[in-house]
Amino acid sequence: MRITKFVTPEIIFGAGALSQVGECLLRLGARKVFIGSDPGVLAHGWVERVVHHLKQHNLEYHLWTSASPNPKDFEVHAGVEAYLNAECNAVLGIGGGSAIDAAKAIALLGSNGGTIHQYEGVDKIKSPLPPMVMVPTTAGSGSEVSQFSIIVDTNRSVKMTIVSKSLIPDIAIVDPETLTTKDRRLTANTGMDVLTHGIESYVSLAATPLTEVYSLQAIRLVARYLRPSTACQSNHEAKAAMAMASLQAGMAFSNAILGAVHAISHQLGGMLDTPHGEVNAILLPYVMQYNCIACPEKYGKIAEAFGEPVAGCSSTQAAKRAIEAVRELADDLDIPTTLSTLGLRDEQIAILSHNAVKDVCMVTNPRDMSEDDVAALLRQAM
Amino acid sequence: MRITKFVTPEIIFGAGALSQVGECLLRLGARKVFIGSDPGVLAHGWVERVVHHLKQHNLEYHLWTSASPNPKDFEVHAGVEAYLNAECNAVLGIGGGSAIDAAKAIALLGSNGGTIHQYEGVDKIKSPLPPMVMVPTTAGSGSEVSQFSIIVDTNRSVKMTIVSKSLIPDIAIVDPETLTTKDRRLTANTGMDVLTHGIESYVSLAATPLTEVYSLQAIRLVARYLRPSTACQSNHEAKAAMAMASLQAGMAFSNAILGAVHAISHQLGGMLDTPHGEVNAILLPYVMQYNCIACPEKYGKIAEAFGEPVAGCSSTQAAKRAIEAVRELADDLDIPTTLSTLGLRDEQIAILSHNAVKDVCMVTNPRDMSEDDVAALLRQAM
Repeated sequence: MRITKFVTPEIIFGAGALSQVGECLLRLGARKVFIGSDPGVLAHGWVERVVHHLKQHNLEYHLWTSASPNPKDFEVHAGVEAYLNAECNAVLGIGGGSAIDAAKAIALLGSNGGTIHQYEGVDKIKSPLPPMVMVPTTAGSGSEVSQFSIIVDTNRSVKMTIVSKSLIPDIAIVDPETLTTKDRRLTANTGMDVLTHGIESYVSLAATPLTEVYSLQAIRLVARYLRPSTACQSNHEAKAAMAMASLQAGMAFSNAILGAVHAISHQLGGMLDTPHGEVNAILLPYVMQYNCIACPEKYGKIAEAFGEPVAGCSSTQAAKRAIEAVRELADDLDIPTTLSTLGLRDEQIAILSHNAVKDVCMVTNPRDMSEDDVAALLRQAM
Repeated sequence: MRITKFVTPEIIFGAGALSQVGECLLRLGARKVFIGSDPGVLAHGWVERVVHHLKQHNLEYHLWTSASPNPKDFEVHAGVEAYLNAECNAVLGIGGGSAIDAAKAIALLGSNGGTIHQYEGVDKIKSPLPPMVMVPTTAGSGSEVSQFSIIVDTNRSVKMTIVSKSLIPDIAIVDPETLTTKDRRLTANTGMDVLTHGIESYVSLAATPLTEVYSLQAIRLVARYLRPSTACQSNHEAKAAMAMASLQAGMAFSNAILGAVHAISHQLGGMLDTPHGEVNAILLPYVMQYNCIACPEKYGKIAEAFGEPVAGCSSTQAAKRAIEAVRELADDLDIPTTLSTLGLRDEQIAILSHNAVKDVCMVTNPRDMSEDDVAALLRQAM
């Protein structure tokens, strides 16, 4: 048996948990807090709430709300300058995966210097990061508990995957109330991202018994609650369940890593600036189909987690039901089914495939995948 | 929805993981390491292995192997003196729950001063503890990941429960190879302790979705692997599964706390110095029976985790099967079934009941329990 590691931040979960943000930062030694967020979260009033709670604890702050979807290298570099000029000593990220990934990248450069490109890959970080508290508002990325930050290299038009235990925040504050301001498309897309995290971490070559239970539970929750959560902004039960699903999937994939869906979608996102969850949702059934022969038993368990009637089925039959269940869910949520809808052109496939096989996430995909395999899969999904 | 917290140390798991002990302590800033252990673990050569790995990293150490089963206040006080005299700045506990609880208590007093009695109860610790790495060798206590330390107050003959996030070690190193030197009685007793952690944390009033999946998985693993693990010292598959079960149950109960079995067995252990797992095994089915009306659905899920054929049963019927499954497991392992076997006398019941209702673990028991209720249960189990 190989030796495995499992690391996760302190987690505070529940409606109203946002109010603990000041206390948490104070406990971590914060004096002046860099608040990293995005215009959408700002517009919905969540940043104001955070500022209120920081003031209650006499914490100074600097506000930076320039993270864009698929956050870019130049945004991060501007953010670091602001962090250093304002003499902050702690970072609070509030938003979706983009805002949190940007906040992490700013914390990284603020303490380790250089440009973000130097840290692409695994374990390139030398010095400790400032205290980090992350508040997710999308039930999607899992970045609030993960050792990942994904930043676009705008020169190369690729997403850089930065992986390090140092990127795991100190505290993740998950407040399902923040999900009630998400629009339906974002709800559907980010929910499909959660599903992808659950499925890819479950079949990952680096999965362990500590991650598998969370992967499966996340899949169960998405299967049951993503439809009602997308249907109704004020369904608090569904929002809480999706927040929990995102958290559990995050704890799983941070430790078990991901697979081919993410390896490919990182490239597509970098090239076309498309919504991450939407790209994942399109790719997921194709990758499941491709990976299926690597571990049909595991795909059978995924069908069970979906509540599919697979008693008496063979693993392979059950695995097919899992793939169908994913397609049906995406259909019900009106998610596009082809990459051409997102603007992908045939001549872009070669470079995408070339880069995808080098992505960190490809290492743990359960079935070997060559450039040709990726290209064939992308053509299927066009 | 209430706000819940989840905290767990960094975990390193796998056969051979013990070899990482020096690297881990070095990473945490250790210079001179206080090794807390017990005579049994020393005799089996595990302490020597640890010393070897510390020397490889040029770490100094002080050896203290005086922890007894149900560790006593005066042992802890002698240990702290040794810790301070040797000028250690980090603590490594290796052994069963007793050695690890003693090591934690020594780390606590070494940094916070005073006597161990001052810290009884919840959140009494003010200053940070030194870096702590814990290596469990019994697949039982879960202390390597928990926020608990249980120390006997020898004057009052009661176990003091000390609960604080500060008691959560920095790193838990779980190496299933260390289980191959456990004798069969210890294997059975500590395994029943794991089962009790799984069941009590699952039905606890403080259970959350983050703890419930680990509780259930721990129960599944015990149901499947405790018999073969007890049957054969060299069954590596069963040892690894029980090590994982103990870890998952520990992560669950550290965050969800426990219930009446532990509230009562802490008193019995303090009074009679009996093996903790054995007392738990005797009490568990009686407490399940008592608690059953509080959450029959949850007990039904426990029956499912045991692999009992409960399809089509009502929750109450399934719950009864869970209780029977626990009794059958204890019977197969030749665990005593009555408290009188352990030396309990009728006239001791009043004081035990009086103290049990005040134990921290009683707060999260799913059914209210008065002194009279405890006394009645103890008489049933005589």
